[in-house]
Amino acid sequence: MEKEIVIIGGGPAGITAAITARRYYPNADITLIRKEERVLIPCGIPYIFGTIESPEKNLIPDTIFENYKINLFIDEVTSINKSARTLTTANGKNLNYHKMIMATGSFPLVPPLPGVDLGNVFVVNKELEYVRKLLASLDKAKDVVIIGGGFIGLEFADECNKRGNLNVTLIELLPHCLLLACDEEICIRVEKKLLERGVNILPGRKAKSILGEKNVQYVELENGQKLKADVVILGIGVKPNGKLALNTGLEVDEKKGISVDDFMRTSDKNIFAAGDCASKKCYLSGTPITIGLASIAATEARVAGANLFSMRRRMECAISIFSTCFGNLAIGVAGMTEKKAREFGIDVISAEASSPDKHPGSIPEAQELGVKLVFEKDTGLLIGGQIYGGNAVGEMINIIGAMIQHKMRADEICVFQMGTHPMLTASPIAYQIVNAAQIALMKIKEKR
Amino acid sequence: MEKEIVIIGGGPAGITAAITARRYYPNADITLIRKEERVLIPCGIPYIFGTIESPEKNLIPDTIFENYKINLFIDEVTSINKSARTLTTANGKNLNYHKMIMATGSFPLVPPLPGVDLGNVFVVNKELEYVRKLLASLDKAKDVVIIGGGFIGLEFADECNKRGNLNVTLIELLPHCLLLACDEEICIRVEKKLLERGVNILPGRKAKSILGEKNVQYVELENGQKLKADVVILGIGVKPNGKLALNTGLEVDEKKGISVDDFMRTSDKNIFAAGDCASKKCYLSGTPITIGLASIAATEARVAGANLFSMRRRMECAISIFSTCFGNLAIGVAGMTEKKAREFGIDVISAEASSPDKHPGSIPEAQELGVKLVFEKDTGLLIGGQIYGGNAVGEMINIIGAMIQHKMRADEICVFQMGTHPMLTASPIAYQIVNAAQIALMKIKEKR
Repeated sequence: MEKEIVIIGGGPAGITAAITARRYYPNADITLIRKEERVLIPCGIPYIFGTIESPEKNLIPDTIFENYKINLFIDEVTSINKSARTLTTANGKNLNYHKMIMATGSFPLVPPLPGVDLGNVFVVNKELEYVRKLLASLDKAKDVVIIGGGFIGLEFADECNKRGNLNVTLIELLPHCLLLACDEEICIRVEKKLLERGVNILPGRKAKSILGEKNVQYVELENGQKLKADVVILGIGVKPNGKLALNTGLEVDEKKGISVDDFMRTSDKNIFAAGDCASKKCYLSGTPITIGLASIAATEARVAGANLFSMRRRMECAISIFSTCFGNLAIGVAGMTEKKAREFGIDVISAEASSPDKHPGSIPEAQELGVKLVFEKDTGLLIGGQIYGGNAVGEMINIIGAMIQHKMRADEICVFQMGTHPMLTASPIAYQIVNAAQIALMKIKEKR
Repeated sequence: MEKEIVIIGGGPAGITAAITARRYYPNADITLIRKEERVLIPCGIPYIFGTIESPEKNLIPDTIFENYKINLFIDEVTSINKSARTLTTANGKNLNYHKMIMATGSFPLVPPLPGVDLGNVFVVNKELEYVRKLLASLDKAKDVVIIGGGFIGLEFADECNKRGNLNVTLIELLPHCLLLACDEEICIRVEKKLLERGVNILPGRKAKSILGEKNVQYVELENGQKLKADVVILGIGVKPNGKLALNTGLEVDEKKGISVDDFMRTSDKNIFAAGDCASKKCYLSGTPITIGLASIAATEARVAGANLFSMRRRMECAISIFSTCFGNLAIGVAGMTEKKAREFGIDVISAEASSPDKHPGSIPEAQELGVKLVFEKDTGLLIGGQIYGGNAVGEMINIIGAMIQHKMRADEICVFQMGTHPMLTASPIAYQIVNAAQIALMKIKEKR
């Protein structure tokens, strides 16, 4: 039964799928094929430019292949014959497979701007060589313009700014940065922090064209403003890479990615897909969403890898859980924002609670940590949460994620049993998640 | 209906009960009676001695009384007539009540050692004056001996050591510190860290007597060893304060505390109890446990405060969730340890996973974070977890707490959707909670 397993792609989905497959199929012959000699940790890419300094310090360790006895081929799959269950590679290899997992990731979106092809205009590409080129260009630059104020754009802006010798300007089309991910109050908090740290933020501006001879010199905005730019970084999002799947004759939607069922099976029952390349469903509506998150990719890979020869796991609809930080301000978001829920037509109640993240607040390095929770008014069901504060936010947002996954209601969260400690959390009296739920519950009662 | 509510006790349970009562009974006359002029944050007490330096910086803010329109009486309730629903205070006040919440807390246990009454022998008392006296004694001391290696004892040891001028020795009866709360490997990790930080740890030793004339001079161990001691701190635990309840004719067990039902009602339906003074049930067995945690006290108070005039909430059985830290080592425990579960007769499977708490591990200040999960073998149900690592542990242990409360099984945790970020968490491939669950699941399958 357990014979040849082939995984295509060496990012978080591919690696996690390979490890999971090995756990479930100890005797299988598992091969991972990837194009890249070495693979960058995708979420770590912005941090190469200010914090880690060298791309070589941001690699997924290849020791995994030895530890889990997975064959690694640095090669590119050029065609797949899904009825014969064979594949061919660029280096002329022919391989058989019994089961395959496609983890081909995503492409950075390139906006249709005049001048995007000029020198020193970069996208957020995950290839080592490309990152090295960007790094070299930044070394010689004075003015950097980043187009796109989502998580990646902001992280690039802050990291470029950390280099010390750059004048960094970020342009965002919407009235605020992060507005697709967070409610306005968090967006404003982040913008303020980045301004404080020396990043120029221009929300509500649209780039019209990128100007220059061979290399970029200016970014021209629709309002006529011209920004000096030695380097431009485009951070406007990604689209699923479904090319190979499409050529293989699998069902693929250009925007949503490779169609998969709840077991992460594509339209061919011997081929699975996981990660950015695979279609995803919104946990609230069950309808397709596009979202590129390594954490979701890894969860999908844990489903695909376990299901290869029998259906053990289902992928639940995706709850987007993001976090990031800029200096001492970390933020986290899980599930729906209030704004998105309202746009969706859901009658929601939201509530906020904040408190120092240590107790008493006189403990050194204590800082304010605020939680906003969003509930369905009729049912009291938690559908989203947002947090700002110190580094504890990174794991605290996962508590809210767990509560959303377990369909907790406001009344249940009010009696949530949590641990608290003076040096590590808010006081038990003021614990933010519980208090936000209590405040929301009173609002829900009032409105009934 | 909503008339006079009286709350006795000004600690976390009393305060939280008063706030909750105000939320549910906006027109009630709510009075909180406490003995103390000002109230120390109980969990913050150890931190007065090394980190915060002054007890005045560790007070529960009395602004709460104004904000929530709660009458504050600094006084002591001397007797309660539960059929007449009246009470009398030490200052000669007579009050009526419709509903009452007792939040009378706990007493520190005093071991029956010869010499415990000598000068400069202290318990962990929550009164401001007492703490000031201990602080004054430490100012003049050179050698401090702490008896009891539980959380509080260790925190006192580390904080006394931070003062810089003290030789601190801690004695623990059991083979390791923290052995009632954590599995051995965590205990050893903590002991090693405290030794590194300069605290002398003597596990497996029993104090025989405390020696001295007027003031303590030595602690004599059962093995004959004599430890020099200018100050002794006894941190061997607490017992519920059920005195007033007993005098009122309520059902009280000396060890377990004031008997309460799931609604936090005592044997008199107009009197509720919450916090250290109230009886608690183990979440695993439903049998009584004694546990003094401000976080559990606050949850109980949220139940009692909401239930005064109608039963809205039930208190679930208590899941002990602890966390603490010593320098850069934080630890957290939720639910059952492997050892306790085995002693209890449960067939368990445990598994561990560790990884840097940032990704890549080359990010500055990244440190190892390890998670151990304990599952019931037959059902795969999560019954406990332990974490060591950096400060993220404080909130991360609450993810495990949420998973225990929601009765998650290993197979469900394997596909838990979490958020990850390079600066804030492990990588999605290595996320410790999910990987520990996956490893446990494989062990469970093997054993079947």
